[in-house]
Amino acid sequence: MSGKIMADGAGAGEAIWHGGDLATAKALFPDAPEPWIDLSTGINPFPYPLPALPLSLWQRLPGAREEAALLAAARAAYRVRPESGVVAAPGTQILIELLPRLVPQARVAVLGPTYGEHALAWRKAGCEVREIADLAEADGADVVVVVNPNNPDGRALGLAALTAVAGSLAARGGLLVIDEAFADFQPGISLVPALPPGALVLRSFGKAYGLAGLRLGFAIGEARHVEALRAMLGPWAVAGPALEIGAQALADAGWLAAQERERGDDARRLDALLARRGRVVGGTALYRLLETPDAPQLFARLGRAGIYVRRFQSDPSRLRFGLPGDEAGWVRLAEVLA
Amino acid sequence: MSGKIMADGAGAGEAIWHGGDLATAKALFPDAPEPWIDLSTGINPFPYPLPALPLSLWQRLPGAREEAALLAAARAAYRVRPESGVVAAPGTQILIELLPRLVPQARVAVLGPTYGEHALAWRKAGCEVREIADLAEADGADVVVVVNPNNPDGRALGLAALTAVAGSLAARGGLLVIDEAFADFQPGISLVPALPPGALVLRSFGKAYGLAGLRLGFAIGEARHVEALRAMLGPWAVAGPALEIGAQALADAGWLAAQERERGDDARRLDALLARRGRVVGGTALYRLLETPDAPQLFARLGRAGIYVRRFQSDPSRLRFGLPGDEAGWVRLAEVLA
Repeated sequence: MSGKIMADGAGAGEAIWHGGDLATAKALFPDAPEPWIDLSTGINPFPYPLPALPLSLWQRLPGAREEAALLAAARAAYRVRPESGVVAAPGTQILIELLPRLVPQARVAVLGPTYGEHALAWRKAGCEVREIADLAEADGADVVVVVNPNNPDGRALGLAALTAVAGSLAARGGLLVIDEAFADFQPGISLVPALPPGALVLRSFGKAYGLAGLRLGFAIGEARHVEALRAMLGPWAVAGPALEIGAQALADAGWLAAQERERGDDARRLDALLARRGRVVGGTALYRLLETPDAPQLFARLGRAGIYVRRFQSDPSRLRFGLPGDEAGWVRLAEVLA
Repeated sequence: MSGKIMADGAGAGEAIWHGGDLATAKALFPDAPEPWIDLSTGINPFPYPLPALPLSLWQRLPGAREEAALLAAARAAYRVRPESGVVAAPGTQILIELLPRLVPQARVAVLGPTYGEHALAWRKAGCEVREIADLAEADGADVVVVVNPNNPDGRALGLAALTAVAGSLAARGGLLVIDEAFADFQPGISLVPALPPGALVLRSFGKAYGLAGLRLGFAIGEARHVEALRAMLGPWAVAGPALEIGAQALADAGWLAAQERERGDDARRLDALLARRGRVVGGTALYRLLETPDAPQLFARLGRAGIYVRRFQSDPSRLRFGLPGDEAGWVRLAEVLA
């Protein structure tokens, strides 16, 4: 990769590149046409329609009743077992930051390559972290982290394999962390409805519901783990508007089902465009991963055309594409990929 | 206190009572007239007018540019020195929960009685915590916590005394934590403009600006402390709407000055009513503290009239009153206090 590309990222000096910060794209490609099309994230471009928000949700401290309603909706939507615990947080990221306190001094294995914040959080806590390519390499780890389906390649692991790993970790006080941030449209791969001891699942609200700025995420797991996280967060962790929007959206199964169909169609349409420029090696309904030796050049061509996609420090031959949110975006994308 | 009162609080089994949860009041006084008047918090009943919020603030991950704008507004509003660091969080509470990681195994002295979450957070982290009645009793502590002005009695400490404590703590790797949650209308008592090494100040957005449900707070201190907190929070800790609302409100000095005058008038009006029932022993422009041996009976009389005020586990002779938000509330309050 060129020096110019190495200077990119969420900000000079930061360890991990993320999508979603258009200011970076604009700085890299100052002559690109406006408006930018941001395909650098896996956030649904069709947000859940915001309900009317009574002023009291902004004014008052978030109430116990509103939080209970959100957690009940989350239990139903994610099919949480009665014996499992659920805690809500202002985004999954803060949960990722707190997880290392559940298993101090852990030896950690992260199934990768994957979302980079998991390994970083455990390293910041002083833990030894290694990336493994297969669950079979997890021997000796106290904590295993799996993003399922994986970001960016969509790889999904079977429930039996995950359950077995959770069992062997639980037997010696360890923890299997499963980040199901992109599982909403693939409910069959979620471990939540049959959650074994030793497993803790993270669910992200903002991606499938297209409201990442709201900051809402959940941890689901053994009561002792969930209560420890709840105590670390303290009271009033989630904003009043997020409690209300989350409760309404998670109860709306019809909206989610329609999104699953429509975004699935979009993903197939995107694959057809991407196939002209390389090989689609995976993804989910909200993003597709393209592999091509020309990825750096394609990133630059897209950038000059005002289209921002996600590239990877670990593999310069890959680009991840989110879904355009309108027909004009599809047309501009098709022109660059033609 | 009666058994009934002991069953009150933020929820059975929780350690600390808080104001603000009307469900508790309704359960205690099911026959009270609606609407309830909630005077149990110190939140300004006149919220900062919500600006129009573009949908993109909800949709996108909170951006680096929006966060920088918020921090710049906070620096100006709180008069932060250039060499001090500032970090924003989804409410001051999560910062209180994270502070114990800055000084592990600390011996902690909390100037009290005061807001209960400080002592609880350090205790949860395994620290030895004692309550002191005077800064002179802080000898031997690694961490001293001062709420300034204090909640609930409004006691304000001088800058010279605080600077001296910070200096002696800094000399041995300790920390002075100053919670200025209610300092917005008393800028002269803030330590921020002359922040000494070894001091860390918490600022709460939601109280003076009347938007506690938004979840926004700040830590201001030495760069090493602030950067450690920023790393613990991770990216995107504050929601997009909170970044935008906070930046606009903190830049609006005219609104704050008008509130300072008007709420000051309200506080004097409240004192005149309270003087009929006991002695006003302190407070701030957003709450007043009444002392009377009849406090439990007065709490019950107010409750039966649909008015919820704050009482204290530590001192049953005290009640804290927030400000009514409209003339109807003032009339109903005056009737019970007559």
